[in-house]
Amino acid sequence: VTTTVTVSLVLDLAGVLVFGLTAALLAARRGFDLFGIVFISIVSGLGGGLLRDVLIGRLPASALRDERYLICAAIAGLLGFRFHLLVERRSATIRLLDAAGLGFFAVAGTFRSLDADLGPIAAVLMGMITGIGGGIIRDLLLGESPTVLRRDIYALAAMLAAIVAVLAEGAGLHRSVTSALGITAAFTLRVLALRFNWQVPRVG
Amino acid sequence: VTTTVTVSLVLDLAGVLVFGLTAALLAARRGFDLFGIVFISIVSGLGGGLLRDVLIGRLPASALRDERYLICAAIAGLLGFRFHLLVERRSATIRLLDAAGLGFFAVAGTFRSLDADLGPIAAVLMGMITGIGGGIIRDLLLGESPTVLRRDIYALAAMLAAIVAVLAEGAGLHRSVTSALGITAAFTLRVLALRFNWQVPRVG
Amino acid sequence: VTTTVTVSLVLDLAGVLVFGLTAALLAARRGFDLFGIVFISIVSGLGGGLLRDVLIGRLPASALRDERYLICAAIAGLLGFRFHLLVERRSATIRLLDAAGLGFFAVAGTFRSLDADLGPIAAVLMGMITGIGGGIIRDLLLGESPTVLRRDIYALAAMLAAIVAVLAEGAGLHRSVTSALGITAAFTLRVLALRFNWQVPRVG
Repeated sequence: VTTTVTVSLVLDLAGVLVFGLTAALLAARRGFDLFGIVFISIVSGLGGGLLRDVLIGRLPASALRDERYLICAAIAGLLGFRFHLLVERRSATIRLLDAAGLGFFAVAGTFRSLDADLGPIAAVLMGMITGIGGGIIRDLLLGESPTVLRRDIYALAAMLAAIVAVLAEGAGLHRSVTSALGITAAFTLRVLALRFNWQVPRVG
Repeated sequence: VTTTVTVSLVLDLAGVLVFGLTAALLAARRGFDLFGIVFISIVSGLGGGLLRDVLIGRLPASALRDERYLICAAIAGLLGFRFHLLVERRSATIRLLDAAGLGFFAVAGTFRSLDADLGPIAAVLMGMITGIGGGIIRDLLLGESPTVLRRDIYALAAMLAAIVAVLAEGAGLHRSVTSALGITAAFTLRVLALRFNWQVPRVG
Repeated sequence: VTTTVTVSLVLDLAGVLVFGLTAALLAARRGFDLFGIVFISIVSGLGGGLLRDVLIGRLPASALRDERYLICAAIAGLLGFRFHLLVERRSATIRLLDAAGLGFFAVAGTFRSLDADLGPIAAVLMGMITGIGGGIIRDLLLGESPTVLRRDIYALAAMLAAIVAVLAEGAGLHRSVTSALGITAAFTLRVLALRFNWQVPRVG
């Protein structure tokens, strides 16, 4: 059990780091100062989990109770500010890590929602929101309509991971297996979508 | 009592459907894909109630505990995507339904806030937020300054319904009567405002 | 004790008034109508505290339980609408009052977060959010990327006040002394930043 907790914590913090780094790069490019960058990194890294905890009433939000989340997100902001050129050059790598983080956040959010006795459909929505909520808040703070809702099968990948999590949980699989399945599903879908430029249909 | 609950639930779901449909049309026009449209329909249909439940601490939010809300909002998004041309042609009808939904949401939100022991002024604010919150979140996600705060006596109609609800509740009227009064008041004000192009005064 | 409570309440309401007034002026300049202006004043005056109470789970939010906050914020909106030319001419004064309000909100938010058993780093973040949250919500409703994250050492001043509050609390100082220290620190930093046009470093 301790191992699972540790693996899960490490993945969670890694997700915060990647989401925070992505946000820092975007904020730096848009002319925010060091302080704004770090702040946006923090709310982007933690935003999805905060939204979920608020909506299911698990308060104070877990990202506020365990300060390692905050520290990790702040470090992501500082790294993004200091090494943005270096990180920009690794943007393909960042995108892959972001896809894995997205899947992990969606699965973890689904678990927490099922634990709070939400039904399967609500749990899928909350899993998605855990995955894409930080990116939505980030884009709003950057003054943009959220790209995670517009492009490249991003939110759909989060939904896929959440659906996999609900089904695997229903089938009685161990949560570490479920996590691996969900992350793999989201990651694969996202990578294929980026590779082959898949898009969700539009009106007209 | 059962009848009241059922009528109230049907009205509530109808409101979610109309708000979701309005949001779907706007999102479709702005180039969101199917998935983004459904997501925006969901958060627009449920957003006002979610905001209210979060602020009064009635968590998990009721729209997450009863999955019919979610399903209804998602269906609205799918309908909006599939039949948007058809629905666009009925935009006058949609606007009337939206005005009725606005009044109903405002009244229902006021009731819930009074039940949570808020005072009358706070209950009016929460009633308004229940009515216009989904529209505000919708416009932010669409990348716009909220139109519900700028035009056509929209938020004012929600406030009127909330004030009617507080007064009628204070006078001891049955809640079904109060609901009818509040919805009628908001609906009438909104229809007159649209018909005669009434505007709230501006600076200068 | 009663005196402290009263002083604290008066400062809190004064902060709401100043934040509401600032918001009203910006909303009036951007063409919102009377109703939109008052609504934006209310959510700007109360928003930071609402966000904090939601995240730490102190619900119903305190600004909804004590209706004097709401009334105060609404009055700020009406004053801003009616006397906007007069207030515009006093914009330097408003800016000073706003700096004091920022410090006070940050300190008060830090106290509440420590009382909710958050750790020092989380308490500093929540103090900052209490200070700048209303301004962020205001700018989003005005359709802009939040200026409080972009300019003039604003968020940094809130963070300074929060850090002072955490340190002084740790040192066992009385909260009235701590408040005075925090407000002074934020106020001084902000005034110096405006006077000498200090900026936080940017990328490139």
